Amino acid sequence: MDHNEIFLTASAMADAARSRTLPLFRSAGLAPDNKLADGFDPVTEADRESERAMRAILAERRPEDAILGEEFGAAPGRSGLTWVLDPIDGTRAFISGAPSWGTLIGLTDGTGPIYGIVDQPFTGERFEGGLGRAQVTSRDGTRALGVRKGVALDQATLLSTYPDIGTEDERAAFGRVACQVRLTRYGLDCYGYALLALGQVDLVIEAGLQAHDIVAPIAVIEAAGGIVTDWQGGPAHGGGQVLAAATPELHAAALALLQG
Amino acid sequence: MDHNEIFLTASAMADAARSRTLPLFRSAGLAPDNKLADGFDPVTEADRESERAMRAILAERRPEDAILGEEFGAAPGRSGLTWVLDPIDGTRAFISGAPSWGTLIGLTDGTGPIYGIVDQPFTGERFEGGLGRAQVTSRDGTRALGVRKGVALDQATLLSTYPDIGTEDERAAFGRVACQVRLTRYGLDCYGYALLALGQVDLVIEAGLQAHDIVAPIAVIEAAGGIVTDWQGGPAHGGGQVLAAATPELHAAALALLQG
Repeated sequence: MDHNEIFLTASAMADAARSRTLPLFRSAGLAPDNKLADGFDPVTEADRESERAMRAILAERRPEDAILGEEFGAAPGRSGLTWVLDPIDGTRAFISGAPSWGTLIGLTDGTGPIYGIVDQPFTGERFEGGLGRAQVTSRDGTRALGVRKGVALDQATLLSTYPDIGTEDERAAFGRVACQVRLTRYGLDCYGYALLALGQVDLVIEAGLQAHDIVAPIAVIEAAGGIVTDWQGGPAHGGGQVLAAATPELHAAALALLQG
Repeated sequence: MDHNEIFLTASAMADAARSRTLPLFRSAGLAPDNKLADGFDPVTEADRESERAMRAILAERRPEDAILGEEFGAAPGRSGLTWVLDPIDGTRAFISGAPSWGTLIGLTDGTGPIYGIVDQPFTGERFEGGLGRAQVTSRDGTRALGVRKGVALDQATLLSTYPDIGTEDERAAFGRVACQVRLTRYGLDCYGYALLALGQVDLVIEAGLQAHDIVAPIAVIEAAGGIVTDWQGGPAHGGGQVLAAATPELHAAALALLQG
């Protein structure tokens, strides 16, 4: 595999997505459609335009690779590689004007995530991990990502997007961790995983995710030295329950609490 | 009152605060102290340095004005004006690397808030309202603030910082509004009030606030055409329970639900 070609393709995709999402962020005419008959699962023209732009780049540069995208589904490939795309993770944040949404570009082989980008266009931060890279590029330049070490559970900061996500059992399990840490914060969407890779927080726990929500964050966090599994300690890249931790010690402590 | 002198003083204070907070945001050595024996109420050197810098500017430029600051308390004045300062609103966000914290600079006379700044140094946005101004200045220049009109309660976006803030009765009252709106988001601190003034969200409901948390947001939101009261419909600038709404219709609807 030509790593440089992967980096250039992913970078071109992230740039293309930015050019579609950022002009619509906080724009007056943005009217979300609702994907659900019962409830509210918003999708906007920004989501669709961003994924179309990324798929067009793959069609030109990487026609042998498979694609799994949130808005336009799966397309088969022959290379053994699959691009897993979420054009706007955190559409609810996007339509609220909050800069915690992001474009997720993940790459998997038969073993799981091998590379990913978490891109936040409004703050201008691109978090990137895998194939030897672990870095964030912003207006201030490029610097290394790395998780924070040596924080005990009772001094840890825990993130989750929604306090009421998941089933009653899942909320109870989350609560067992939340009551042991020093600080729990909500509402950060994919940006929370980026903050873990940046060494700013120690744990992210979520439930009810899709593969496109988590493949890119896994690659970034693992490249930064962290650990991501499901709530049984197994692979998380298929979605569902996710436990991301800065260190093996925090991962083990949180896993034990989640399992009750 | 010389409005231009007020604007220049407040701008100099916000610049000085930025110069103290931004270098410490996400810095490796930032170790929060805890203000509480039972619980976690973090304060950092960034909070203290930022308030000191703002007070030094007032001492030089506006020695007749009173000051009420989160970290260093009250200082009397003779002008009838009081500067109400929160050097870092959202210290929990600050120590988590999340860009929802801000520096709050409010100005009151005998009647309540007359001017305020909500400054977010990391995104580079300065929201300003009162004395004829209603504007946000960012890297892209300066543009007018204005609340969003014509959104019904069942289409509204509601923000609050914590799902578990306040007493059991306050949580129940908040829940009566949350279950009627289309979308509820958490974790935005003072940035949530800025998003209301920017026309991105429709309601912010909080409890347990201090005067320094809310004086500046009230000035910005009122200048943008919104309404801020307590949960009884009275003045909110003393802190406690706060209901901020984009329109009179949303304010009335939320107030009725809060009062049960």
